[in-house]
Amino acid sequence: MSVTLDQAEKISEAAKAKATEIGVPMNIAIVDEGANLVSFHRMDNAWLGSVDIAIKKAKTARFFNMNSGEIGRLSQPGGPLYNIEHSNGGLISFPGGVVLKDASGKIVGAIGVSGGSVGQDHEVASAATAAL
Amino acid sequence: MSVTLDQAEKISEAAKAKATEIGVPMNIAIVDEGANLVSFHRMDNAWLGSVDIAIKKAKTARFFNMNSGEIGRLSQPGGPLYNIEHSNGGLISFPGGVVLKDASGKIVGAIGVSGGSVGQDHEVASAATAAL
Amino acid sequence: MSVTLDQAEKISEAAKAKATEIGVPMNIAIVDEGANLVSFHRMDNAWLGSVDIAIKKAKTARFFNMNSGEIGRLSQPGGPLYNIEHSNGGLISFPGGVVLKDASGKIVGAIGVSGGSVGQDHEVASAATAAL
Amino acid sequence: MSVTLDQAEKISEAAKAKATEIGVPMNIAIVDEGANLVSFHRMDNAWLGSVDIAIKKAKTARFFNMNSGEIGRLSQPGGPLYNIEHSNGGLISFPGGVVLKDASGKIVGAIGVSGGSVGQDHEVASAATAAL
Repeated sequence: MSVTLDQAEKISEAAKAKATEIGVPMNIAIVDEGANLVSFHRMDNAWLGSVDIAIKKAKTARFFNMNSGEIGRLSQPGGPLYNIEHSNGGLISFPGGVVLKDASGKIVGAIGVSGGSVGQDHEVASAATAAL
Repeated sequence: MSVTLDQAEKISEAAKAKATEIGVPMNIAIVDEGANLVSFHRMDNAWLGSVDIAIKKAKTARFFNMNSGEIGRLSQPGGPLYNIEHSNGGLISFPGGVVLKDASGKIVGAIGVSGGSVGQDHEVASAATAAL
Repeated sequence: MSVTLDQAEKISEAAKAKATEIGVPMNIAIVDEGANLVSFHRMDNAWLGSVDIAIKKAKTARFFNMNSGEIGRLSQPGGPLYNIEHSNGGLISFPGGVVLKDASGKIVGAIGVSGGSVGQDHEVASAATAAL
Repeated sequence: MSVTLDQAEKISEAAKAKATEIGVPMNIAIVDEGANLVSFHRMDNAWLGSVDIAIKKAKTARFFNMNSGEIGRLSQPGGPLYNIEHSNGGLISFPGGVVLKDASGKIVGAIGVSGGSVGQDHEVASAATAAL
């Protein structure tokens, strides 16, 4: 099973609510089990450059079944995955990409959020997953 | 003025309603005045290959301020814009991309729809613009 | 459900057997439900340029849930999908890409074959699907 | 002489056996003397993002006739090959890409493995080369 559009909409609504609560307009992307885009929302005044980043964060999380920031911890100079970002047409390896799991723990997609600090991006993405 | 996320959501809802009415799951992309993505929705079971096509149709329409099919009429072999599709990272020049105008007639963005025949795509895109 | 590696191996074996039978070394790619590569085989002496073509044929078939040649019929100059090949990082729209369906008729992936005439490519791809 | 498909299949089988033994589903790519793809296998549940990484590791190893991790040692900030990953459409310079040699020591291709830690990837790739 993969995330449906209805589920993606609920998750995005939760992300928008959290973004509004912390006062930072966000870009919010959701991909399915196959890492293909299901939905995208750019809140008014959110960074234009974060359109691509939000999408790449979501794909990165699903590509490796872990939060995007985990990849970034391993891809620093001297680290085991240094420069992994050159694969797959470009990865984004800082926080804001979070895997989506169904009730049984199976990964059904991922969300990517970009528009604030990476801490804020991850906060919004994490809060949104609770809507699934 | 550019299309807002609220407006994009209303337009997308109208597109989804029309797609449901004709029984064809669609990919629906909306770009703003700057040709940057505002929102995207892939209806369940819509073609995966139409994610990129819907986005490119919306961008193509806003890039040239005309419906995507108009570009296609001019880009045929022997035509004045032959192979214009090679520009801008790839255009889609068949119907389904429609410009969005505000009440005064000013262009504020564009919608791209892909998932059925080009006639169906254009029908859904055109119907959705009425929601603006 | 998506095609498994075991199933992909059986399908590829059937493709290789058919290719050997007609005496044309082939490139054989199989993608899953999400259009992601599952397996690839290049038979000895098969065209190098067909590595990419076989993969793109498989993706094209799954992207639009139809055989790749169907897209090509519609993408000719003057046709409704003219120049659709510019989407999705490049499509291949001539025959040789065939959708894979399970016993219930559900699409679970696609196969792409390249190395001979398009008639031979399609013949090998079609014969291989019987192994699923 | 270049690695044949039969040899690539034997090497891939050995890689799959080792991957199964250590309990990590892997992506396994083999390229020939010309750095062109010969075979690819994604084991069920292996990371989607490792499709591209396994292929790039194999190419990287054959491009420079050394294991991919050797390139990574030289491409760190301040190192002699800093950012070499930008070449050739993207390299992967961490372990998991290993050159394939015939009985006489001549390089006939390379294998790339991705799906676990870089230590596991290299372990599987190295074990597989014994099958040649």
